[in-house]
Amino acid sequence: MSTRGGIDLGGTKIQAVVVNGAGRPLGDARAPTPHDGGPADVAEAMSAVLREAATAAGVEPAELSGVGVGSPGDVDAATGVVSNVVNLPNWAAGFPLAETLAGALRTQVAIGNDVQVATNAEARLGAGKPYSSLLGVFWGTGVGGGIVLNGKAWVGRGAAAEIGHMVVRRGGARCPCGRRGCMEAYAGRGAMEARARRLNKRGRRTRLFEIMEDRGRDRLTSGVWERALTQGDGLAEELIERALKALGAGVASAVNLLDVEAVVIGGGLGLRLGEPYVRRIREAMMPHLFNDDRPPAVELSTLGDLGGAIGAALLVPARRKAPAKAASLSERTSQEA
Amino acid sequence: MSTRGGIDLGGTKIQAVVVNGAGRPLGDARAPTPHDGGPADVAEAMSAVLREAATAAGVEPAELSGVGVGSPGDVDAATGVVSNVVNLPNWAAGFPLAETLAGALRTQVAIGNDVQVATNAEARLGAGKPYSSLLGVFWGTGVGGGIVLNGKAWVGRGAAAEIGHMVVRRGGARCPCGRRGCMEAYAGRGAMEARARRLNKRGRRTRLFEIMEDRGRDRLTSGVWERALTQGDGLAEELIERALKALGAGVASAVNLLDVEAVVIGGGLGLRLGEPYVRRIREAMMPHLFNDDRPPAVELSTLGDLGGAIGAALLVPARRKAPAKAASLSERTSQEA
Repeated sequence: MSTRGGIDLGGTKIQAVVVNGAGRPLGDARAPTPHDGGPADVAEAMSAVLREAATAAGVEPAELSGVGVGSPGDVDAATGVVSNVVNLPNWAAGFPLAETLAGALRTQVAIGNDVQVATNAEARLGAGKPYSSLLGVFWGTGVGGGIVLNGKAWVGRGAAAEIGHMVVRRGGARCPCGRRGCMEAYAGRGAMEARARRLNKRGRRTRLFEIMEDRGRDRLTSGVWERALTQGDGLAEELIERALKALGAGVASAVNLLDVEAVVIGGGLGLRLGEPYVRRIREAMMPHLFNDDRPPAVELSTLGDLGGAIGAALLVPARRKAPAKAASLSERTSQEA
Repeated sequence: MSTRGGIDLGGTKIQAVVVNGAGRPLGDARAPTPHDGGPADVAEAMSAVLREAATAAGVEPAELSGVGVGSPGDVDAATGVVSNVVNLPNWAAGFPLAETLAGALRTQVAIGNDVQVATNAEARLGAGKPYSSLLGVFWGTGVGGGIVLNGKAWVGRGAAAEIGHMVVRRGGARCPCGRRGCMEAYAGRGAMEARARRLNKRGRRTRLFEIMEDRGRDRLTSGVWERALTQGDGLAEELIERALKALGAGVASAVNLLDVEAVVIGGGLGLRLGEPYVRRIREAMMPHLFNDDRPPAVELSTLGDLGGAIGAALLVPARRKAPAKAASLSERTSQEA
């Protein structure tokens, strides 16, 4: 009965997984995140993907101990309401995501912050396992962060670990968040693409957009960046170098403040570019580390794309044994949510 | 028996205090830190200042439950050995400060990091009392920090809270630590004085150095800066504005990462300039706060100059009652250190 489901709600895809009591995946599934409609449509797609993962694992959703969700936006873990999901349409107001999914899947549902649950997964089951304190850095469209101290997530007043919006250059580049000089303004894939487009329009040559079109994409995915780097594209290398310098300064600043044992690098771009670029982040941190004789371990995520969904599943407490008599689902939900 | 002593070892002065079980000062004393000789001479001066504070409180040092020390440099709390005190002469190698003081004062001695103990004091007895998580920012010669999360000090692997060396401008001004773009390179009084001297040599007019000489000083103390600001000195205002911008970006970055409830501003310059400048730090943080609709409280230290010594005293556990039979001093030290 300790089989649990997890759903990672991303801006482009929904990833679901079913794990056993030890957090090992038994089945998984993914689908694109719907960009028509609103939160109810997204919730419906999430249920469908979780059902598919359950089928792959050979269980019914209602047989799961519960389902955890890693969500972007403002997550109220107590009520299961999610609001201000800026990268999904019509999702500013609060939507009762936990309640909706619990009704559709007939099991209890717990919700947490997407990046924090992915960090928890790395801490408990992935690259962070040997360490009691770590910083997760998710290098993708934006740069997200998660913090684990003494083996527990640190979320502050609910909004900690906004590492992408640590300032690396006061008065510097405009960030997608509207502020200036944030790490994400240099290192986020979104900001990097915007800059590549501007420079390309001004006549700067690059293969980035050809590769994008060859692949039938309308944006510079992590795969497009990787391909351009492999081909030695000058602009791609320049923008990645700029991103790495910002990551080095920002992550080193965070380490100067927190003195964690380890930094785990994940996210779409981090996972795609892999260890050689983790090494470059490590090197870019060195000039800014106050205790540079004792740098933290800087490791690539080992759970990869599934990390967010596995971490979401960990939100559901593992059960040691089945209850003597199964309570009704609604009772179970209200007792344990 | 819960009367405790505390010593704050600073680069310019030694501050001692004797407090009651509730942390309230019963007597205090201060003296300049000796800059001739080495650690043994500093320890002797520390004992003398503590004795003076004890006399003011009407107790003998040996009657105290113990004495706590807030020290700069690398502090090994377990052994009481302090090394790498860069702003005091001949103190690179480890010196057994706790043992030396315990012998001289005939009571147990505990040692902690100077800035962290000052932060603990604000958290338990000062401006941070209403909050369970806070960041202490000590704006003086350098910019030091201390972190309290869930009511407990967070020290990482022993070197956390180096807030002064968070990067606010990658590739920017040279910091006294040798790195570039650290907050302290703009906001530390040491760096500010170096810049004032350079600009003054290049012909920039300022009253800063006249005020310094009038006061018989050889460096720009916090009092000198305050006086120059009061007189409307253009260079002083410009350098303080630059410091405030760096503090705003750096402290906001720390808050974006930690999402603490409160920031407490102390340190020589912070205390001297007081609330009007705390307000300016608050304003300078706003453009960089990711959750700017819910900024943390930003408060001036309420314990002031005594905070470090009071926080040091808190390192000694308060006793509820006297032991049935007093153990020998050496036994007490080894049992409780």
